[in-house]
Amino acid sequence: MPRAYVFDAYGTLFDVHSVQARCEAFWPGKGAALSQLWRAKQLEYTWQRSLMGRYEPFSRITREALEYACAALGLALDAARADALLGEYQRLALFPDAREALARLGSQRRAILTNGSPDMIEPLVAQSGLSFDAVLSVHELRIYKPAPQVYRLAVERLAVPAADIVFVSANCWDALGATAFGLRAVWINRTGAPVDRLGAAPERIVTSLAAL
Amino acid sequence: MPRAYVFDAYGTLFDVHSVQARCEAFWPGKGAALSQLWRAKQLEYTWQRSLMGRYEPFSRITREALEYACAALGLALDAARADALLGEYQRLALFPDAREALARLGSQRRAILTNGSPDMIEPLVAQSGLSFDAVLSVHELRIYKPAPQVYRLAVERLAVPAADIVFVSANCWDALGATAFGLRAVWINRTGAPVDRLGAAPERIVTSLAAL
Repeated sequence: MPRAYVFDAYGTLFDVHSVQARCEAFWPGKGAALSQLWRAKQLEYTWQRSLMGRYEPFSRITREALEYACAALGLALDAARADALLGEYQRLALFPDAREALARLGSQRRAILTNGSPDMIEPLVAQSGLSFDAVLSVHELRIYKPAPQVYRLAVERLAVPAADIVFVSANCWDALGATAFGLRAVWINRTGAPVDRLGAAPERIVTSLAAL
Repeated sequence: MPRAYVFDAYGTLFDVHSVQARCEAFWPGKGAALSQLWRAKQLEYTWQRSLMGRYEPFSRITREALEYACAALGLALDAARADALLGEYQRLALFPDAREALARLGSQRRAILTNGSPDMIEPLVAQSGLSFDAVLSVHELRIYKPAPQVYRLAVERLAVPAADIVFVSANCWDALGATAFGLRAVWINRTGAPVDRLGAAPERIVTSLAAL
């Protein structure tokens, strides 16, 4: 039996595309495209800045990705709309399967391990009503997933060996980063996507957090 | 006057989407989507593997990205088609502005600095008929762009100070990686895209290699 469950936040417990309705309200017909491009650029920037050695907090990266995405799609973004959309990131919807899956866990410890900087993740977790033994952010390491030191943070802070930690992510590359480091990883494949070809395989693939 | 011009290869001198016709021939109606997803995954895998510390040569990453892209789009990829499509990477089309731009350069040294492993880039350059003072690959460093050590390789191998090297890329994040390291960078913005928000700005933005 695992001794701890460690969850990715964005895309796994919380639906990053719950910003889409607000995007759509601001720019009718463009909500889906903006939400998709915003998320794609957000992730690209985490990888590129990490490799450049130019870390900035996820809150700043999320804002910069929004600015890029609006510019690319020809959408006029003023400060009020930017603030409103970034505010949505502090009240992202929980995936429907998340609360029940967490409730059904036994006595194991549970934590979040996230790219989110404290200024983003702490209000989000607080408003969700969920409780965790630890909310761990890459922010103190100044490098983003899937760098191995990020996954090592869970081992160190929970004081549980890697082989006794199950890491849960709906981002396949994140699950594979955890696997490459040595955690046991479950990929939540909600969309029937192929496994990423990164030289590793998750221990389990399930279609929903409910299957944990 | 700069003392050396250093060019990115894929997407800058050579059109990675010249694979699209072969994709389209194999899977009518899917060529554009496959070409786009293949390229996007190829880049993602370079960033993710670099951060994971799990370098593999660009030739392998390109194959793995093709496998992923075909699986995601529901396209059956057998060994013959995979080999044929990867073979296209050794005869990518030169962009129309590339040959003339290179011919018009003066006595400056000229080099390629590429993610491409030697098994991919050397046949491609050979068939192009272009000549360079150096073809530098990240392969010896076992990390991909935009890590700063990649751009440092140009300084070391050309024995020219960073401030006397103009780095030319149509990949904005690549131009910004070079800028962050200290090279002078020109972004070839053929598509009218916004500048990536990565905390740096290219020295120049032009719409074509002809404007160099």
